Amino acid sequence: MTITEERPTYKYVGTRPVRHDGLDKVTGRARFAADMNLPGQLVGKVLRSPHPHARICSIDTSAAEAIAGVKAVITAADFPEINPSTRNYDLLVNLMARDKVFYVGHPVAAVAATSPAAAAEALAAIKVDYELLTPVLTIDDALNPDIPPLHDHTTTHDPDVQDPSNITSVTKLSNGDIEAGFAEADIVIEREFTTKPVHQGYIEPHGAVANTTEDGRTTIWCSSQGHFNVRSQTAAMLGWETTRIKVIPAEIGGGFGGKTVVYLEPLAVALSAKANRPVKIVMTREEVFVATGPTYGTKMKIKIGAKSDGTLVAGDAWMAYSGGAFDSSGGLLGAMTVFESYKFPNFEVASYNVCINEPRSAAYRAPGAPMSAFAVESIMDEISEQTGVDPFELRMLNAVDEGYPSTMGGVPRPRIGFNECIEAVRDHPNMSAELGPNQGRGIAAGYWFNIGESSSATVNLNEDGTATVVTGSPDIGGSRASMALMAAEELGIDPHDITPVVGDTEAVGFTDITEGSRATFATGMAVVDACRKMKDELQARAAKMMDVDIDDIDWVDGQAVHSPSDGAEAKDPLPLAKITRAAKKTGGPLTTTGSLEARGAGPSFGVHACDVEVDPETGVVTVLRYTASQDAGTAIHPSYVEGQIQGGAAQGIGWALNEEYMYSDGVLQNPSFLDYRVPVASDLPMIDAVIVEVPNPAHPYGVRGVGETAIVPPLAAVSNAIYAATGCRLRHLPMSPPVVLAALNENPT
Amino acid sequence: MTITEERPTYKYVGTRPVRHDGLDKVTGRARFAADMNLPGQLVGKVLRSPHPHARICSIDTSAAEAIAGVKAVITAADFPEINPSTRNYDLLVNLMARDKVFYVGHPVAAVAATSPAAAAEALAAIKVDYELLTPVLTIDDALNPDIPPLHDHTTTHDPDVQDPSNITSVTKLSNGDIEAGFAEADIVIEREFTTKPVHQGYIEPHGAVANTTEDGRTTIWCSSQGHFNVRSQTAAMLGWETTRIKVIPAEIGGGFGGKTVVYLEPLAVALSAKANRPVKIVMTREEVFVATGPTYGTKMKIKIGAKSDGTLVAGDAWMAYSGGAFDSSGGLLGAMTVFESYKFPNFEVASYNVCINEPRSAAYRAPGAPMSAFAVESIMDEISEQTGVDPFELRMLNAVDEGYPSTMGGVPRPRIGFNECIEAVRDHPNMSAELGPNQGRGIAAGYWFNIGESSSATVNLNEDGTATVVTGSPDIGGSRASMALMAAEELGIDPHDITPVVGDTEAVGFTDITEGSRATFATGMAVVDACRKMKDELQARAAKMMDVDIDDIDWVDGQAVHSPSDGAEAKDPLPLAKITRAAKKTGGPLTTTGSLEARGAGPSFGVHACDVEVDPETGVVTVLRYTASQDAGTAIHPSYVEGQIQGGAAQGIGWALNEEYMYSDGVLQNPSFLDYRVPVASDLPMIDAVIVEVPNPAHPYGVRGVGETAIVPPLAAVSNAIYAATGCRLRHLPMSPPVVLAALNENPT
Repeated sequence: MTITEERPTYKYVGTRPVRHDGLDKVTGRARFAADMNLPGQLVGKVLRSPHPHARICSIDTSAAEAIAGVKAVITAADFPEINPSTRNYDLLVNLMARDKVFYVGHPVAAVAATSPAAAAEALAAIKVDYELLTPVLTIDDALNPDIPPLHDHTTTHDPDVQDPSNITSVTKLSNGDIEAGFAEADIVIEREFTTKPVHQGYIEPHGAVANTTEDGRTTIWCSSQGHFNVRSQTAAMLGWETTRIKVIPAEIGGGFGGKTVVYLEPLAVALSAKANRPVKIVMTREEVFVATGPTYGTKMKIKIGAKSDGTLVAGDAWMAYSGGAFDSSGGLLGAMTVFESYKFPNFEVASYNVCINEPRSAAYRAPGAPMSAFAVESIMDEISEQTGVDPFELRMLNAVDEGYPSTMGGVPRPRIGFNECIEAVRDHPNMSAELGPNQGRGIAAGYWFNIGESSSATVNLNEDGTATVVTGSPDIGGSRASMALMAAEELGIDPHDITPVVGDTEAVGFTDITEGSRATFATGMAVVDACRKMKDELQARAAKMMDVDIDDIDWVDGQAVHSPSDGAEAKDPLPLAKITRAAKKTGGPLTTTGSLEARGAGPSFGVHACDVEVDPETGVVTVLRYTASQDAGTAIHPSYVEGQIQGGAAQGIGWALNEEYMYSDGVLQNPSFLDYRVPVASDLPMIDAVIVEVPNPAHPYGVRGVGETAIVPPLAAVSNAIYAATGCRLRHLPMSPPVVLAALNENPT
Repeated sequence: MTITEERPTYKYVGTRPVRHDGLDKVTGRARFAADMNLPGQLVGKVLRSPHPHARICSIDTSAAEAIAGVKAVITAADFPEINPSTRNYDLLVNLMARDKVFYVGHPVAAVAATSPAAAAEALAAIKVDYELLTPVLTIDDALNPDIPPLHDHTTTHDPDVQDPSNITSVTKLSNGDIEAGFAEADIVIEREFTTKPVHQGYIEPHGAVANTTEDGRTTIWCSSQGHFNVRSQTAAMLGWETTRIKVIPAEIGGGFGGKTVVYLEPLAVALSAKANRPVKIVMTREEVFVATGPTYGTKMKIKIGAKSDGTLVAGDAWMAYSGGAFDSSGGLLGAMTVFESYKFPNFEVASYNVCINEPRSAAYRAPGAPMSAFAVESIMDEISEQTGVDPFELRMLNAVDEGYPSTMGGVPRPRIGFNECIEAVRDHPNMSAELGPNQGRGIAAGYWFNIGESSSATVNLNEDGTATVVTGSPDIGGSRASMALMAAEELGIDPHDITPVVGDTEAVGFTDITEGSRATFATGMAVVDACRKMKDELQARAAKMMDVDIDDIDWVDGQAVHSPSDGAEAKDPLPLAKITRAAKKTGGPLTTTGSLEARGAGPSFGVHACDVEVDPETGVVTVLRYTASQDAGTAIHPSYVEGQIQGGAAQGIGWALNEEYMYSDGVLQNPSFLDYRVPVASDLPMIDAVIVEVPNPAHPYGVRGVGETAIVPPLAAVSNAIYAATGCRLRHLPMSPPVVLAALNENPT
């Protein structure tokens, strides 16, 4: 179901062709990180800390090096020193522990050997002498100035924080007069919320193969969200020039923000350089859980004031985000999103990043936003209840709209589709479904700002009129198909006469990570830019072939059409394939590039409605119905937009109901998909995705990124639904059966 | 030794840095065609005709298909029908015989199996019922209208040829009044010459791996001189769109023109499609000899008239080139070169391509020219002797120069360095070396026209100021280094901060084959074009960063330099790396492309002097000294220019002295490097290469192609030297020991 504003009629954009990489993926031919093998390749393995916090007194690798088949052993000593005040210091220390280990799973050494057995034997033979330190295990402890800091170089530039501490950075925002705001309020609700670290849960574990050669160059095959970023980060970790590193993107089996950081690549390169052989390292699932970044655990206190008609007048947020053992962006991102959906004339935000002895966090789909939306949308539900204003009406009343200033810097918003998303769910047939006993419906909205960043694209036309479109964006959610559709629309040829290619770091211009829902938006802009240059070139070639003035040539539906301005007889149109066949005679190959720093990523809103049934005997929550609207601007390939909405909602439901990192004394107790429970198909109903299309004025086709927003509303939507079903308001995630059952027992209906 | 005309001073062009691919090649890491392996890969083998000429009555593959491990068997029936009058017909029939086989080694079927043994067993189990036909084995028989033609579709458009016949095409050229010309002559010399087919002798046999997937797309890894051409030819042979085919260039172990044709790639693709598995086919050396193209065998009668002072007045050439079993370009190329070195006011050329039952010929380094130069330069030696004009003086007297019209169409020549090449050898210290008994010195010149064609290049600047230069030209003779040097000169950064990349068919714009000595010339132009666009962009970015007018910015030695036109104080220069680091803030990634149909390939001349000693008892000819000058325009990397000159001379010496296809009843008797004798290092002296630099006005650095010319003079230079040593004038190649000994016995000094 799609609601479309008025816009041009498209021939290919908005259709649903089979994706170009579809057959390869269903037949198992697509090659992921672990599928690459090179002759002479060694097995790499990583020795990881068994302690959450300890000083490394010494590492003795001599016994490991003496084992038959062991070709290289590396430790932090094999990497350059980096100044702790520089950007990459945390990344380097996380890659390979230096003086201290900061979490169970923190790498302390790595080996490369001719067999897995020899590599495992070598790991066991490395002697690390640890001095155990008291771990910092909770956000509350991290905020306690009496507990010693993990790092001695942190600086927050905040006058209220005594550096160094376990508070690693602080974001403060405010507008209006918060005291006057709350004084105006008829209702003030202040609540505390907590969420646990949850993992992105991508199906494909991290893997990397590196082949470092005698000339000091290396080629890396790996799965990542951005191979140019793998190149930059690996270069920084090794102290190399980027031009010595080529990164070839493997297919990616899910990333969701978690594959934006190097964990294995610099290790594989360093081992390969030392062994003078290719080295492959693939993580186990347990390693993925203990040593790659889950999202932040949070604790927040949110206070909102409203008039009795539901109008919001003030918001006050205190938020703490745990970045695991290092500083993170969580607090900043939480601050940027917490009060961004609604008109708060007066607000204050104080957001803290803290570090504790857990794995370094990484981005996870709309990082930082689901937690703040969980808090705000739960309170909105309470305001709705207390004021009697219908939850859709309450949100319509307060929803930000075009021109309303952003909480970050007051920039006026462009045209956005928030109200349209509220209407789309409000009017959805699911809203008239009857609810039975122990059933309830919850509503929540979500916002994500989306980003632009750098993208490049090359369009090559072949002799026979077919085309190749090369971009630097890994295809995570169907971007090959989107790129081909936009190019098809521009050039006027069938999308299947276009081969969309994800080029390696030597095959296309610099392109940032596929993150911030930017690929279809920003890389799409680069594709359109390259195609428009190509159409200019095709018109010039056609004018030459027809021997007419270029100003009299238009590009219409894949043909150069002659429309003489002087009223003379028009020459026959020249289809693209005739121009490409003659290219050698008219100036040579037809190749163009588009490369840009994209501006104007359209903010994205989504509104979700969730129907649940709560089993009063077990506390099990069953999702009965789920309706999710989202403003896609223009859906280039609607199936993949729906897929993003469904996927985000599914992950959000998992986060709400079951997912959590369970620790005991700093040791993760559930590092497997058996014990860390992500929702599987049988846990969920069909998620009804409703695409709203309010074109983004900054994009040639009106695209807004769609990848992240859908994970923002579910936490509150599910919680609000459980409240509606049970009368229990749950503010601490996950709302797993024992938690729900305990709440029911405390507060029987 | 280099003789340089006045030109700008270059910082990097003309230096000799270690080539970027050097270490990989000496350590064995470089991956050639046979080095690629894919999981599940099958072994492909080709069944070849044992007969030089036969009709295929039937092929029964059923027994082969039934063998365990055999996954696919293909014959001509698996390829589309092509109209015999179309361009690709010969290529398709040569790829896989249809109704007839035309030479021993002609493919009739191919198989893919899980092991070499199963594949070999399958080949043996294919039953082909042949009806033997009388083979046409000599050029004389091909010219005999009473002998039936191999093909029934040939058309020469020549009034003197009755179609169809074994004459497949005819080129006729003339200028002036040839009878009047000969009437003016004081000396007229008319001679007959023959040369045998010789093979390019590349060290790496042909190999290809194809992975055809269920979606009708394929990826090919192979070694070739042009992977875009492999893509086009494979698409044409299969009737596919080019966009379904990706060709990844392997490193190439020599080509010399012989790797410009597909032999294995379409077979591997078709087998892979049928078997649904990757298929690899690698030729044996015997297959390379019997089934890939050697150069043309020739027979020619050349008549030249001169005045007694040595001035040439008329030339008449009758030439026949054998293309093996199909039409070729040999006759045309012979006609284009035979009278192109000297001023012939009156000339006539009639040049015939004929077909006989031998493997289809392919290009070989300056194709067609060495044979015609052998004839003309031998006669020039006789004219020198008869007129008493020194051989250098005779050539200086008649050498074409700037403005003199070409024999092809009368186009005036641009600035060329022919006279400079003659002087360079004349003045070389080797010319004063004393000659002993049985020793002699021979002089000969050579010409090659060089070509331009289509080339593309992409320049990507990385964040840290390093660069990638991607082109579509396989690196056969050091072109990576040349591209990096030209880019370094343009951008003002060190060549080793540039990674020169040979991009696959999806990674760079269309690029023609590395042939016609065009890579450094034409692809170099594309690189320079892309770099100049990049400098414009860098200047614009620098102007933005300095907040000054772009017109006040110059690019000087890797820096944007501010020279205010209004006399204000200049801002500090911005080095390239500072601009690249800020690229995200000034407009995004820095990537540019150059793509062009290159015009103005500079004609190339070379002059060789050869000193030999002939053993009167065995006829063995030993090359004592060899001096070779050549006009390189500008030598971008002089070591590789010298390498080309030395390599061409070495191949020409082999052709002159030993190499030949020895047939018995149409069956090749010497298909191995033991019996087909190419010169090895111990057979040759150090070849003294003299680079002459007369810049080509059409290229930004003055480059002329250098790859081919050096093979043109040696045939005559060696023959003239043998004459000087022995008094025996040898006009039939090769001048192998038995031939020389027979001549010595016939004509004792």
